[in-house]
Amino acid sequence: MNNARWIWCKGDFELYHSIQLHSRREELGVEYPVMWALYPPFPNVVFRKKFNARRAGSFQVSVRGKAYIRVDGEKYAPETEIPFTAGEHDIEIPVLCADGTFPCVFIDSEELITDESWICVHASTEKYPVGTMEEYCDKNDNPHIFKFSYEPIFPVASERIGEGILYDFGRETFARLQIERGDKEQTYRLCYGESREEALDAQNAIIRLTLAGQDRYDLDGRAFRFVFLENAADSVKVRANYEYLPLKDRADFSCNNPEIKKIWDVCAHTFHLNSREFFLDGIKRDRWVWSGDAYQSYMANNYLFFDNNITKRTILALLGKPPYAQHVNTINDYTMYLIIAVKEYYQNTGDSKFVAFVWPRICALYEFLASRTDEKDYVCHRSGDWIFIDWSPMDKSGPLCAEQILYWQTKNAMATLSELVGEDGGNYTAEAEKLKAQILRDYWNEEKGAFIDCHTSGKENVTRHANIFAILYDFVDEDKIQKIYESVLENDAVTPITTPYFEFFELLSYGKLGKIQHIQDKIESYWGGILRLGGTSIWEQFDPNREGIDHYEMYGKKFGCSLCHAWGSGPIYLLGRYCVGVYPTDVGYKTFRVEPNPGKYKSFQGTVPLPEGEVQVEYADGKLSVTAGAEGGTLLWQGKEYTLEKDVTLTV
Amino acid sequence: MNNARWIWCKGDFELYHSIQLHSRREELGVEYPVMWALYPPFPNVVFRKKFNARRAGSFQVSVRGKAYIRVDGEKYAPETEIPFTAGEHDIEIPVLCADGTFPCVFIDSEELITDESWICVHASTEKYPVGTMEEYCDKNDNPHIFKFSYEPIFPVASERIGEGILYDFGRETFARLQIERGDKEQTYRLCYGESREEALDAQNAIIRLTLAGQDRYDLDGRAFRFVFLENAADSVKVRANYEYLPLKDRADFSCNNPEIKKIWDVCAHTFHLNSREFFLDGIKRDRWVWSGDAYQSYMANNYLFFDNNITKRTILALLGKPPYAQHVNTINDYTMYLIIAVKEYYQNTGDSKFVAFVWPRICALYEFLASRTDEKDYVCHRSGDWIFIDWSPMDKSGPLCAEQILYWQTKNAMATLSELVGEDGGNYTAEAEKLKAQILRDYWNEEKGAFIDCHTSGKENVTRHANIFAILYDFVDEDKIQKIYESVLENDAVTPITTPYFEFFELLSYGKLGKIQHIQDKIESYWGGILRLGGTSIWEQFDPNREGIDHYEMYGKKFGCSLCHAWGSGPIYLLGRYCVGVYPTDVGYKTFRVEPNPGKYKSFQGTVPLPEGEVQVEYADGKLSVTAGAEGGTLLWQGKEYTLEKDVTLTV
Repeated sequence: MNNARWIWCKGDFELYHSIQLHSRREELGVEYPVMWALYPPFPNVVFRKKFNARRAGSFQVSVRGKAYIRVDGEKYAPETEIPFTAGEHDIEIPVLCADGTFPCVFIDSEELITDESWICVHASTEKYPVGTMEEYCDKNDNPHIFKFSYEPIFPVASERIGEGILYDFGRETFARLQIERGDKEQTYRLCYGESREEALDAQNAIIRLTLAGQDRYDLDGRAFRFVFLENAADSVKVRANYEYLPLKDRADFSCNNPEIKKIWDVCAHTFHLNSREFFLDGIKRDRWVWSGDAYQSYMANNYLFFDNNITKRTILALLGKPPYAQHVNTINDYTMYLIIAVKEYYQNTGDSKFVAFVWPRICALYEFLASRTDEKDYVCHRSGDWIFIDWSPMDKSGPLCAEQILYWQTKNAMATLSELVGEDGGNYTAEAEKLKAQILRDYWNEEKGAFIDCHTSGKENVTRHANIFAILYDFVDEDKIQKIYESVLENDAVTPITTPYFEFFELLSYGKLGKIQHIQDKIESYWGGILRLGGTSIWEQFDPNREGIDHYEMYGKKFGCSLCHAWGSGPIYLLGRYCVGVYPTDVGYKTFRVEPNPGKYKSFQGTVPLPEGEVQVEYADGKLSVTAGAEGGTLLWQGKEYTLEKDVTLTV
Repeated sequence: MNNARWIWCKGDFELYHSIQLHSRREELGVEYPVMWALYPPFPNVVFRKKFNARRAGSFQVSVRGKAYIRVDGEKYAPETEIPFTAGEHDIEIPVLCADGTFPCVFIDSEELITDESWICVHASTEKYPVGTMEEYCDKNDNPHIFKFSYEPIFPVASERIGEGILYDFGRETFARLQIERGDKEQTYRLCYGESREEALDAQNAIIRLTLAGQDRYDLDGRAFRFVFLENAADSVKVRANYEYLPLKDRADFSCNNPEIKKIWDVCAHTFHLNSREFFLDGIKRDRWVWSGDAYQSYMANNYLFFDNNITKRTILALLGKPPYAQHVNTINDYTMYLIIAVKEYYQNTGDSKFVAFVWPRICALYEFLASRTDEKDYVCHRSGDWIFIDWSPMDKSGPLCAEQILYWQTKNAMATLSELVGEDGGNYTAEAEKLKAQILRDYWNEEKGAFIDCHTSGKENVTRHANIFAILYDFVDEDKIQKIYESVLENDAVTPITTPYFEFFELLSYGKLGKIQHIQDKIESYWGGILRLGGTSIWEQFDPNREGIDHYEMYGKKFGCSLCHAWGSGPIYLLGRYCVGVYPTDVGYKTFRVEPNPGKYKSFQGTVPLPEGEVQVEYADGKLSVTAGAEGGTLLWQGKEYTLEKDVTLTV
């Protein structure tokens, strides 16, 4: 029978794999578990279903955990033949996992399969839907092991250096290193390097191991391009298994400047490497899930894979489970990105079922957030909080303007989501309006043409962050947008953004204002700069004023900078959204617009995914061709609108 | 340095070991995990302490889990020497357990130890106290393994029967069976039996295993007196390691009837076997923690071991952790026993620190309970609930009287506990009074001189249960007590109690009314009856009208009856409380009374524990001697009061 799936309590797969993931960080030979709260899956649940058998038969149940099966009150063991008569039957399967994993079961028979029609009970008065993944559809599958794909890869070069051998795999990868024909008596020191210099620096390489006692090693997946194996004899064989999620690239971009295509490809490679159980920040160092980083990855995802599953997994991992006593990643702004992201996920996908499932958690998280604001309902610093926004210096001596604009957008998101689940969102809307009026009164400085950081310190300090949010989230009118553009964005006297993280938000605001050439210039200078230095993936940070291995230094560590960081994939979104110009105009792309903007490119070819099908745009010699793989598209070009028919190329 | 202890997030030790315990049940060769909700420990926490070093030094940290140590911002690995200067230091130790265990750490050095002065943080805004146990005080200890004591035991007889050998260990035990000098090629069937008949009945024995492939087996702890090893050659050696908690018997009882001393000893043995990680119901079958059974065990404990630790562990395991979506063990009455038990624990111990720790959980549990009552605030059946009280038939067609009296007592307990933690309990008291008036109006039937089961069905059915609670919890005045005594307790037309579980409550009510001889008669007939049938521990149920192996049948299973059941230990409490007559008259036995009542015994000798010290009472030839090992005692004898001085024997 088809469509049988392993089932578990929905959300617990993500909680479990989040715990596993967040236990894997290591640094300079020391374990480095995450310090924010993780939430365990239920140790035991009961799976239930009433089923109506057309005829008598039997089935077997596979289980991960300790379990029995009760059919109409009669008890059976897993992996035994369980008979039933024609007609209605009640099945319940209590499962207990005492080892920190999560209960899951699988049935694939003529009359009965496990699928989303089952329900799951932990405490007796609460029912949960079950979770499934199409990857877990065979009785031998084990949802406790995240299913990656593997591909053998080999060094493209090796070089003896002193007592060891340096292997170069040609480009950044994440793989399970295999060492064969080693010497059992030998103790090996193994250094991983995202750069050659890191692999050769046993004192400062972030990831290094000591191996002994075996002649063959099959190591856990780690990030590297280079590895150095100290004490390696020439006979040793080193290879690796590239470990990855087989997500399909559904986008592409090239233009008259061939460098841009190379940048785009390296961005896609970078994003692929960081798209695993969840969206990671970077693959070498943290390998953690950060809500701010993930927020940018959701965007890139919709312009490369349009894979809803990884977005949902990431949201569930970040949400954890109530009761909440901390912000997401302990950061106030990261809580708010997560709530806003759920609304944006809905707008991009129309997936109201997912919203309904996360709604109680979103409400609990919002209540935690709202319970800690000040007497004016401003988000402020409370013990245990981290008011982050960005690493740049800003005036955080009182409630910070950027937090308040996020909070306003969070209330808007709560209003939208409330309506969606059939609740009245009017309160949230009213609160948002009140908050907006306050923010404009307290933080807008007409003289400076900008929002100031803080209204209580008297310093009237201006940074870019709140002003960028004001544009991104349509917080201000056209008049103020122009003022912000001139007084902040284009004003060199306002400290420039220093992190690529917030740089992405700034570029989004340029995109929103139609200033595509600013984005294109930045891609050439910043992303091009990394490639010109030999980067095979996009770095966490790049400062053209640095030299040599100083590029690799960050957080006070010689090789602290991640050379493969998800937020480096910005051009995928920026080019797809603002150059190819595809975006939804209704929930789930029921309608969408293609609004190409070549900017400085003389010609370009771009493909952008829709939920189903793709949009292909070609521009050359002033001529534009657009093909959309779905209904609902409109082309907007040089002030004119054209209806796009599915799979029919329109040339204008 | 002394007093170093492993530390963990308080309560998580109990949650973890409860999951382990509740995964161990097996029945007729099938796993039988518990079906009510279990609650996992936190997978990760941060341990914190500020410490002031008198001089420079160093320390090492042992950890169970992945961890690092941060001292004044500097990172170190576990099991390395961590230096510090004289003066103030901030330490934090994030620990993550990805395998379902719970984080714990240990430091034992000159200047710094782990102890209850540390705090623990899961989510950043909530601090928890740490838990410790004196059993875990060495760096090689592992709190993930519950620490039992072991003692080798040997069969007292063996007998070849067909292809196998039956081993008799002489009396009921719980032990790790060891089989030596076996045959690797042989497949053994092993049957455990609490009775000889069970061990010899491979089809119906509750616990049985198939062993193959080894010549030596060291099996998990299980309950048995007999084991039958099929296919055993004569050369096979069978022995066992008795697995137990080294709790000290601090009580004793004997009288002119030597059978009573034997009964008391078998009760003590039974209670010992069931006192493990927590108070179990029985050691063969469920091995689960049930709040109703545990409620009776708390009482027996105070008259045998007076070990507060096992009571606290049991309460924490039963409480689990909010948010609550089910009753304790899914049973409404069991939720209420638990709340009442916390109040009684406080009254017996004065341990306000424990009450303060569990208070948020108790409040959440009470809120769950109170959120599901009917419009009159009566406890009623809601989906997912189990209105139990007892297996006897009673009129459960509407809110049940026994539940309401428990609810009244629960509100009283909430009032007492509120005051204790510095909150106003006035609301609970007012609600209790209102509820009481309602119960008296709706359920008291003056004509019958009894409370009826149900006031909505019109059936006016009388069972003993509510009437027993009315006496036990001082719900009614002297006049009604007398009526209940005559119309219910002493009225054979009212269906007798059929379970030893509720029989205990009935005997308590006789004790409360001073009818000690009824208790003494029952001990001789019921408990004596089990011993006369060869019982070496007290059974879950005993019906003198049954014969032969029919005694072992229960729940529709040939050997379904547990032959070693905690609730069988009632005489320990009954004799200590009502014959020796020791009970507290102020919190934690600051003052206590000794009110002996020989009843039908011509002479008796009894010892009952106080929190510190014991009370010894000897009665013979009308002469009474009392020695109390603590201050605060008063003797009440033949209507006269005598002050007891510590360690001074008073003879009257």
